[in-house]
Amino acid sequence: MYAPGDVRVEERDDPGIEEPTDAVIRVTAACICGSDLWPYRGTDAVTRPTPMGHEYVGVVEQVGDEVEQLSVGDIVVGSFFASDNTCEICRAGYQSRCVHAVPMGAIGTQAEKLRVPLADGTLVVVPGAPTDAQVRSLLAASDVLGTGWFAAVAAEAAPGKTVAVVGDGAVGLLGILAARQLGAERIIAMSRHTDRQALARYFGATDVVEERGDDGVAKVKELTHGLGAHSVIEAVGTQESMMQAIRSTRPGGHVGYVGVSHDVVLPGEELFFSGVHLHGGPAPVRRFLPELIRLIMAGEIDPGAVFDLTLPLEEAAEGYRAMDERRATKVLLTL
Amino acid sequence: MYAPGDVRVEERDDPGIEEPTDAVIRVTAACICGSDLWPYRGTDAVTRPTPMGHEYVGVVEQVGDEVEQLSVGDIVVGSFFASDNTCEICRAGYQSRCVHAVPMGAIGTQAEKLRVPLADGTLVVVPGAPTDAQVRSLLAASDVLGTGWFAAVAAEAAPGKTVAVVGDGAVGLLGILAARQLGAERIIAMSRHTDRQALARYFGATDVVEERGDDGVAKVKELTHGLGAHSVIEAVGTQESMMQAIRSTRPGGHVGYVGVSHDVVLPGEELFFSGVHLHGGPAPVRRFLPELIRLIMAGEIDPGAVFDLTLPLEEAAEGYRAMDERRATKVLLTL
Repeated sequence: MYAPGDVRVEERDDPGIEEPTDAVIRVTAACICGSDLWPYRGTDAVTRPTPMGHEYVGVVEQVGDEVEQLSVGDIVVGSFFASDNTCEICRAGYQSRCVHAVPMGAIGTQAEKLRVPLADGTLVVVPGAPTDAQVRSLLAASDVLGTGWFAAVAAEAAPGKTVAVVGDGAVGLLGILAARQLGAERIIAMSRHTDRQALARYFGATDVVEERGDDGVAKVKELTHGLGAHSVIEAVGTQESMMQAIRSTRPGGHVGYVGVSHDVVLPGEELFFSGVHLHGGPAPVRRFLPELIRLIMAGEIDPGAVFDLTLPLEEAAEGYRAMDERRATKVLLTL
Repeated sequence: MYAPGDVRVEERDDPGIEEPTDAVIRVTAACICGSDLWPYRGTDAVTRPTPMGHEYVGVVEQVGDEVEQLSVGDIVVGSFFASDNTCEICRAGYQSRCVHAVPMGAIGTQAEKLRVPLADGTLVVVPGAPTDAQVRSLLAASDVLGTGWFAAVAAEAAPGKTVAVVGDGAVGLLGILAARQLGAERIIAMSRHTDRQALARYFGATDVVEERGDDGVAKVKELTHGLGAHSVIEAVGTQESMMQAIRSTRPGGHVGYVGVSHDVVLPGEELFFSGVHLHGGPAPVRRFLPELIRLIMAGEIDPGAVFDLTLPLEEAAEGYRAMDERRATKVLLTL
């Protein structure tokens, strides 16, 4: 990305092994994330030409001398943070905050080849040979599914519970899939777009609420005997969506928030008296990858259905435009 | 309380049974809470003479027709919210947010007699005959111990964990006691007052940090291999203390906050990237009362040690002055 709105695909030097814990992979599929739109729209500054992307499925081409768990030819998935998976924070399940974490977005996965730091800790091998549909789902696992899953876990979605989902982007939609897998009894999708409502129902939503803000909160309360949902997933990151999430949650309930809170301020006193649990942040996708890969390869989940536009990498600029103009929810880039 | 700084003890009509679910108790001991100082200091408005207090131990004198669990003569403890203990929110353990909750502070427990709504759900019977020291501890259970305990539970204090406690008032000190009982390995008290440091150590603190704000955060990190504490109890309720608590917690760790957040605003983006769990609010003390009473009557805990000034009810005004001027941490009023 050269500047807001200016995406170019160009030749760069192939990456190589820099540290003995690195691997180099040939990227099979990458995609464009909602967060890639921040610099595209000028919300985040672009000061120089910047490699883009942090989601990836690939095949191992080279490994450093200290890499023990991976072999050339392995099909692998990783998350948007490289992590050693051995430090105290990783072992507690917060690999996105690994003491050695490297953001993959700083390396840029929308590329033919990719250097992955801390390869043993970061990459998870896919058993067997995934179909094209499974590759799409594995790519979703790299971020949007993993993030939606974390949100559902943070919101403590579970059998017997009502889960409300604020946000009908890819992460919110896959939060619905996750809540369903975690056994939630009722899943309320908050969406006003008919195509996304359809996908929400496909992933497991039992109810759809079109209202937003305080009207949306009132509707969720109406559906829950006036109490609010047990669990609420926040997958937008605005002031309105965050307050909508908190206010839709019953006292003692759980808010799992994964929309990066740009310009959000939480009023302490209201939060105090809400009595909710609040947990979120950059999703530790690595924690969930083995289970997500298992579910995908067993054919139990189909998160790849969030991709509604597929383009070759050379047409990445059109992919950004389509997402920016909301012509696409999530764009897959093939290589 | 007639106005800020103006506390009077006067004769009022005896309370009686108003609802068939009420009980009337003779108050044995009451006390002054840090939150009673808000109107005393003019932080909360006092628009008319207001009965004060929300902590109490007493003896049942009268019960309404629908009260089934209590008998005249029972020694009882309740929390600062009356609750039915049967609604969905109560059953989930959030009795302070019971759908029928009545704040006891609106009735005023710094009195000889007290009407307790929803008596079956609210009051817990003390088995046997408590000693004077046990009565002090039972009174602490009514709020400060129950609140500190909730904070420690919300912060997920547990064996193997390091717990930091921000705030050395009665609640913070009893949060230390709770963390100890819950098996925490290391408990860092953040306090700059030598008398409170001594009490903190008595209740189970293993380390004391005198620094505040960012210096306090740096000290906690220094004591925890740079990671921050697993669990942090926030028992103050200011912007500085809340940020100190969040910043002292490692990614994936838990903040239990029970200081009422007056004028606190949480920066969403910092909270997001902190990766902490945040839970708190008005403590559902009723959830913990049976266990707290058991521990007190078994002589296993001595929370009554937080009371450092005892006065007869008639001298309540002096009690408020002493707490306002920080000559006392917590004042017990005898009847």
